[in-house]
Amino acid sequence: MQKLSEYKMFGGRQLRYQHESDVLDCAMRFSVYLPTAVERHPVPVLYWLSGLTCTDENFVIKAGAQQFAEKYQIALVAPDTSPRGEGVADDPDGSWDFGLGAGFYLNATQAPFDRHYQMYDYVVDELRALINRSFPVEPEKTAISGHSMGGHGALTIALKNPDIYRSVSAFSPICSPMHCPWGQKALTGYLGKDVSQWRQYDAAALIRQAKTKLPMRVDQGSADEFLVEQLKPELLWQAAADAGFELDFRMQTGYDHSYFFIASFIEEHIGFHARYLDS
Amino acid sequence: MQKLSEYKMFGGRQLRYQHESDVLDCAMRFSVYLPTAVERHPVPVLYWLSGLTCTDENFVIKAGAQQFAEKYQIALVAPDTSPRGEGVADDPDGSWDFGLGAGFYLNATQAPFDRHYQMYDYVVDELRALINRSFPVEPEKTAISGHSMGGHGALTIALKNPDIYRSVSAFSPICSPMHCPWGQKALTGYLGKDVSQWRQYDAAALIRQAKTKLPMRVDQGSADEFLVEQLKPELLWQAAADAGFELDFRMQTGYDHSYFFIASFIEEHIGFHARYLDS
Repeated sequence: MQKLSEYKMFGGRQLRYQHESDVLDCAMRFSVYLPTAVERHPVPVLYWLSGLTCTDENFVIKAGAQQFAEKYQIALVAPDTSPRGEGVADDPDGSWDFGLGAGFYLNATQAPFDRHYQMYDYVVDELRALINRSFPVEPEKTAISGHSMGGHGALTIALKNPDIYRSVSAFSPICSPMHCPWGQKALTGYLGKDVSQWRQYDAAALIRQAKTKLPMRVDQGSADEFLVEQLKPELLWQAAADAGFELDFRMQTGYDHSYFFIASFIEEHIGFHARYLDS
Repeated sequence: MQKLSEYKMFGGRQLRYQHESDVLDCAMRFSVYLPTAVERHPVPVLYWLSGLTCTDENFVIKAGAQQFAEKYQIALVAPDTSPRGEGVADDPDGSWDFGLGAGFYLNATQAPFDRHYQMYDYVVDELRALINRSFPVEPEKTAISGHSMGGHGALTIALKNPDIYRSVSAFSPICSPMHCPWGQKALTGYLGKDVSQWRQYDAAALIRQAKTKLPMRVDQGSADEFLVEQLKPELLWQAAADAGFELDFRMQTGYDHSYFFIASFIEEHIGFHARYLDS
């Protein structure tokens, strides 16, 4: 693991690293904010999964999250959104919603994507293990959040691993990739045409099956340009209501899909996680 | 004046405009954050001047300032850092510290820069008049801040116009462009070799002559890579001490020159201005 940069911020440290990922079979970069308390004791850790086209840096630069990570003394980890590098397959059409920058936090089974696109295992297992052994964090106090494709990632990962993640939140998540163009394109490309394979990565489907409930908050902007066609939060509400799953959903009037929306409510999300992380 | 974008943020609005500048003889872009109170009454206004290579967007995206503009109900205005466009002269060497993105907030007298590079008049007169007549702001409650080259701009502009600006602050300013390589290059290129013409744009020189004092705060990171060679805050301290000018200067241990530093202390700067803007 090689440190690429370090900046002091709000008293703590904003760090960026590169490491060789066995799971993804390529070099990966990630960012970590460590609050000041790590000098004295380990702290809880919140993972942030970014959306389409992002790297680990968008959240670090645009969300204004570090001040609240410092306030609540929580470490923030931001991975990249797909495998990267010379040999990594991309969408042959060069689109921005599939391939590089669009890993959808799943394990691909279809060639040529199955070699590198194993973002689910990377986030849940490999990166988490690396963080837990490399930084002063409390592994039993882990939470996850994300935006858009990363909101989908956070919801699905937490729903499948309520033993690992104490709480989950999302901004403008793709709530049911099985039922929107972004998701159908990605699920077909990474998993093939057998729809039965898609359910394991669909938050609305997973919430109906969830045996263990965990605290879940979702914020959605009402002026989001992707709301109706791609995000479909109504499918998440309905599934949560049917399953008796307590979902704290907020429709935020007039906000769009941008990081300006995220910045406006990131304090509330980190505060939400802090309650369940005892921080 | 044409609106380019509008985002809801912290309840208020983050706006971007383009207009034809007579002073600069080119089209210019600027950003404005309007807090929620503008729906009911005019608010004070804080100008932010950015550093070398920036546009109006860096501050908007990276500083995390809007939440505190909303907290204190102050409008934020961020201009670009130089004239722009096809016919605007640039450094023939294509460097990043002179010409485009490096207007130094002065009025150039040397061809070919004198035609467009009139950033002092643009910020103090033309843009301010445009803001005052276009948005619900209180013209008598105006303050100014900035970073690096923009810190130099804020300090010199406020020192020359204490009747216009109630307070001034700066992050990592170029404190005496007459005495550093960035400044000497720019002052020579824009004003010629006559050093007597340089003093009017040198904060350390101006503070010695200031007849009217105004509240001034400066934050500087001790790990700033430009501190010793380019920024030279000791020249500002000394001048302030000699002139009996009360300068609230903070050396912030371990911080560098980046927006991560600005984000860490922007709340304190906006709070500082809020005291003098009665907001």
